[in-house]
Amino acid sequence: MTPAPISRFPVPEREELPADLAERFTDVEERSGFLPNVFAALAWRPEEARAFFAMHDALMDKDTPGLSRGDRELIVVATSAGNDCLYCVVAHGAVARIRTRDPYLADQVAVDWRKAPLTPRMRAVLTVATRLAADPAGVTEQDLAALADHGLTQDDVWDVGMITSFFALSNRLAHFAAIPPNPEFFLMGRVPRSADVAEGERRRG
Amino acid sequence: MTPAPISRFPVPEREELPADLAERFTDVEERSGFLPNVFAALAWRPEEARAFFAMHDALMDKDTPGLSRGDRELIVVATSAGNDCLYCVVAHGAVARIRTRDPYLADQVAVDWRKAPLTPRMRAVLTVATRLAADPAGVTEQDLAALADHGLTQDDVWDVGMITSFFALSNRLAHFAAIPPNPEFFLMGRVPRSADVAEGERRRG
Amino acid sequence: MTPAPISRFPVPEREELPADLAERFTDVEERSGFLPNVFAALAWRPEEARAFFAMHDALMDKDTPGLSRGDRELIVVATSAGNDCLYCVVAHGAVARIRTRDPYLADQVAVDWRKAPLTPRMRAVLTVATRLAADPAGVTEQDLAALADHGLTQDDVWDVGMITSFFALSNRLAHFAAIPPNPEFFLMGRVPRSADVAEGERRRG
Amino acid sequence: MTPAPISRFPVPEREELPADLAERFTDVEERSGFLPNVFAALAWRPEEARAFFAMHDALMDKDTPGLSRGDRELIVVATSAGNDCLYCVVAHGAVARIRTRDPYLADQVAVDWRKAPLTPRMRAVLTVATRLAADPAGVTEQDLAALADHGLTQDDVWDVGMITSFFALSNRLAHFAAIPPNPEFFLMGRVPRSADVAEGERRRG
Amino acid sequence: MTPAPISRFPVPEREELPADLAERFTDVEERSGFLPNVFAALAWRPEEARAFFAMHDALMDKDTPGLSRGDRELIVVATSAGNDCLYCVVAHGAVARIRTRDPYLADQVAVDWRKAPLTPRMRAVLTVATRLAADPAGVTEQDLAALADHGLTQDDVWDVGMITSFFALSNRLAHFAAIPPNPEFFLMGRVPRSADVAEGERRRG
Amino acid sequence: MTPAPISRFPVPEREELPADLAERFTDVEERSGFLPNVFAALAWRPEEARAFFAMHDALMDKDTPGLSRGDRELIVVATSAGNDCLYCVVAHGAVARIRTRDPYLADQVAVDWRKAPLTPRMRAVLTVATRLAADPAGVTEQDLAALADHGLTQDDVWDVGMITSFFALSNRLAHFAAIPPNPEFFLMGRVPRSADVAEGERRRG
Repeated sequence: MTPAPISRFPVPEREELPADLAERFTDVEERSGFLPNVFAALAWRPEEARAFFAMHDALMDKDTPGLSRGDRELIVVATSAGNDCLYCVVAHGAVARIRTRDPYLADQVAVDWRKAPLTPRMRAVLTVATRLAADPAGVTEQDLAALADHGLTQDDVWDVGMITSFFALSNRLAHFAAIPPNPEFFLMGRVPRSADVAEGERRRG
Repeated sequence: MTPAPISRFPVPEREELPADLAERFTDVEERSGFLPNVFAALAWRPEEARAFFAMHDALMDKDTPGLSRGDRELIVVATSAGNDCLYCVVAHGAVARIRTRDPYLADQVAVDWRKAPLTPRMRAVLTVATRLAADPAGVTEQDLAALADHGLTQDDVWDVGMITSFFALSNRLAHFAAIPPNPEFFLMGRVPRSADVAEGERRRG
Repeated sequence: MTPAPISRFPVPEREELPADLAERFTDVEERSGFLPNVFAALAWRPEEARAFFAMHDALMDKDTPGLSRGDRELIVVATSAGNDCLYCVVAHGAVARIRTRDPYLADQVAVDWRKAPLTPRMRAVLTVATRLAADPAGVTEQDLAALADHGLTQDDVWDVGMITSFFALSNRLAHFAAIPPNPEFFLMGRVPRSADVAEGERRRG
Repeated sequence: MTPAPISRFPVPEREELPADLAERFTDVEERSGFLPNVFAALAWRPEEARAFFAMHDALMDKDTPGLSRGDRELIVVATSAGNDCLYCVVAHGAVARIRTRDPYLADQVAVDWRKAPLTPRMRAVLTVATRLAADPAGVTEQDLAALADHGLTQDDVWDVGMITSFFALSNRLAHFAAIPPNPEFFLMGRVPRSADVAEGERRRG
Repeated sequence: MTPAPISRFPVPEREELPADLAERFTDVEERSGFLPNVFAALAWRPEEARAFFAMHDALMDKDTPGLSRGDRELIVVATSAGNDCLYCVVAHGAVARIRTRDPYLADQVAVDWRKAPLTPRMRAVLTVATRLAADPAGVTEQDLAALADHGLTQDDVWDVGMITSFFALSNRLAHFAAIPPNPEFFLMGRVPRSADVAEGERRRG
Repeated sequence: MTPAPISRFPVPEREELPADLAERFTDVEERSGFLPNVFAALAWRPEEARAFFAMHDALMDKDTPGLSRGDRELIVVATSAGNDCLYCVVAHGAVARIRTRDPYLADQVAVDWRKAPLTPRMRAVLTVATRLAADPAGVTEQDLAALADHGLTQDDVWDVGMITSFFALSNRLAHFAAIPPNPEFFLMGRVPRSADVAEGERRRG
């Protein structure tokens, strides 16, 4: 792959960034080993970048009995695939593989979630999320009630809607600015590595 | 109209809000005469509310030669109409009437922007914005170049994309939570004269 | 709004019209205060104009327990909105506001009738009407039976179908000839005026 | 084919009809050898029937250099096929075979008019007509200009739009009332018969 | 109809064909009275031609209680009509008229199978087949179970899927190479002829 | 991933297969290390299996200057992604990674081929192939001519059409029988392995 530009818009150097963003970017880079391109692409608009990452973290860095971190990533994968968004499918597919510890599920959800091996709860979640993504006026009170029937709390139900809505924004931004996924994402979570194993063991405690 | 609930989710009382949001809401209410329902509906999620309003203001409270405040509102109206979003069409239609000082244009743009009396520049803007809203993968480098050809700066072009993306989020949130427009929006900007002022004064009593 | 031409086709002067049409136009003008543009646009084709207005009046000037004049206008608004027809949405939205004595309902129905505050009967009516407008082959015997279940007579059911069909014609004509709504329609029925009040009192008489 | 009912609505006996309709129906029956079902299905609504047939005849019983009777029938066939309307495809396909003296063209136009052996003029006509039928808001001033470029007069251009609009009504009525084509239409114009030959000779004079 | 070319690709002479294909073509021609154009169009690719006809015959030359030869042809007609494929609609419509001994049913199925006079079994078959043709990911386990409920064996159910899949190929090939139906197909099975009558009598024994 | 069944239909044991298929399957298994599920799923229908594999090999096992083996696989990936076919996207994505020696391109083409780093030739190929897959009646003579302009021979152009058509069949079969991709495909070609390297060196010879 010829290295594609990170964005159709300016990508500032790290030293040009406001201090809070520079610090955040360095932090992400240290934890992940690389800086996901969406950070770099948003940096020239610091206020929007801050709002974007604040919204993202409020919705995605959360684990509830009704909606785990992995479940949240699968919402992103399913709805972003419906929008043909390469950045979100590949980057969040990678995170989904790690969160779900399943090297296959993210691809299954991306291409045909209806036949993917999902729980009835997650099938209901993706039914509503993909409807909201593609046909927002078609979502009804009954759709929300169906999620509650599967054990989602009112907070979880809101999160299904808000995660889907936030990635409706994110998919469009990635298409508009033509932000490619970092090459690192493509393989992530496909091959068990010692670090992953260790992390897995730590979690399973 | 039977007063519809403001949201399918909890709507906190003003005194339950974090101080910064309470202050902001009071401020908005004083300037507008009422609190737009989207504020009330987001309040139970303070972090998301802060990010939402920060993003909104960064994109909409800006006047450039290539993209005036009124132009920005028309992007919202055209793309929200494509999503059948009553809240955004009515609320931003009202703001658009005020910003453009035209009592007809917002309705024309909402129902059939292609035949609305727009400048070639705004026709190009709405062509790209409605494409990004409905078919994000279909937006090409040429679409962005066309905007530059009409005199939009790189910042303006980004704004076209980001406003559309932000309201892709906003439309879905309004549908998901079933947020109705405040009754005040329906008439706003249609009768731009003493009648409004009088009516406003009467209401504020 | 720059005054747009009334049609892409010739618009004859009043004195050029056949006597029956001239009389009818004068009559309409006297009752409404202005001549709706669709009259002017059809006038160069007297035979079609006569058939058009005869069909219109046979379907719309009728009040039955199952389908009031206001209900009939809402069918027009909902199906015309699906066709992005500015003329019909604005002109019949105005009439709907007057007939239903509700300043909000027509806009709600135009943008998102599914969440509008409608009776179950009218919800069933608009379900069938919008299906017939958008996907005529998809209408089934069960759809018609559902209308009867809500108390519509056989005549009312036919009217739902025929009104929808007639405005499928009307929407296409308005798009083809680019007929704009008269400016008067935009505000009509939004602000109670003495005339309206008087009319209302006369009717409730 | 089990004889299907002529309509989902009442079909009056001939002697129940108003005199003018009864006379017209008898006349049609004598000329065609049978009464097309759409007449019978509309008869219970005399006013609508009169308007319907008046509009039909004003548009279809006309031969101009830019739009012959056969061309008009092909507009009906192409747009009705897009609406999956059996009555209109079969009945007007039959008339089109007779008017065009071509036993194949109507079927070609019904299934895939884009590859049918048409003149550039008729290809332009069907491009605009099928667009108006399926996506009325998508028709532009340029579409109408293209028809003029192919030699259509302003009257012919209007007719393209009005015929398409009228059959948008007609297709929906036929679906809603489930009006089947008379069996006679299926074979008509496929096999040259003496009557056809005679008619052909008379015309060619 | 000006004789259209048989294909956009080379059509070899009979004597240029491999012996097995030449023999097969001569055989078909003798039985049918003419060589269907799809044979001629595929002949320049002998391996693909052999595979194509082998697949075709394995699926279509079979009569089971759950899926007769006529039923199989109607699957082809309904799904090919959905793809606007003139060759398949006309050629297999002709065969369907002969197999079903019904001069009307193929046209009814081609234009609007939902209102055609079909058994509940065939209605279920066409529901699944047209879904698989138009929206393959939308077919569910329940769709297949519904066919079994109507008495189809596991082999019959597979055939519904495989016939539809094979004509998804065939429709696309016919469009890509622009293969027109032979003129003979248009009239076939519409008029009872002595041969048909004899065949009919033989079958009814 | 819970091992999913290979098909909704019977999957015969190897020893139940006709000798030619058993031999072929053993051969494939030896070369690939596993038997792709589509072989197992088709085996209960030997005639269809033979025709299917004959057609597949005639189209895919071919390398021309205008359409390499890798290019052919990318046609499969792009059109199968449009049909949400997991089996074909994953299995042919794997083969495409190996054929193109690019670990990223298949995923890029699967999710958003329009922004993938492709040659103008392959961009033209995928434009026509995805149009034929999704809207077969929309393919025109000009589409085929555009391929010739990019250096494709008449044989290559046919192959673009026939590969797309064949996978229209294949995608529908995989959906209908619910054939999952073998787990081996997911990782194949993502990590250079010694065997790959050796193979690569042999080829570059």
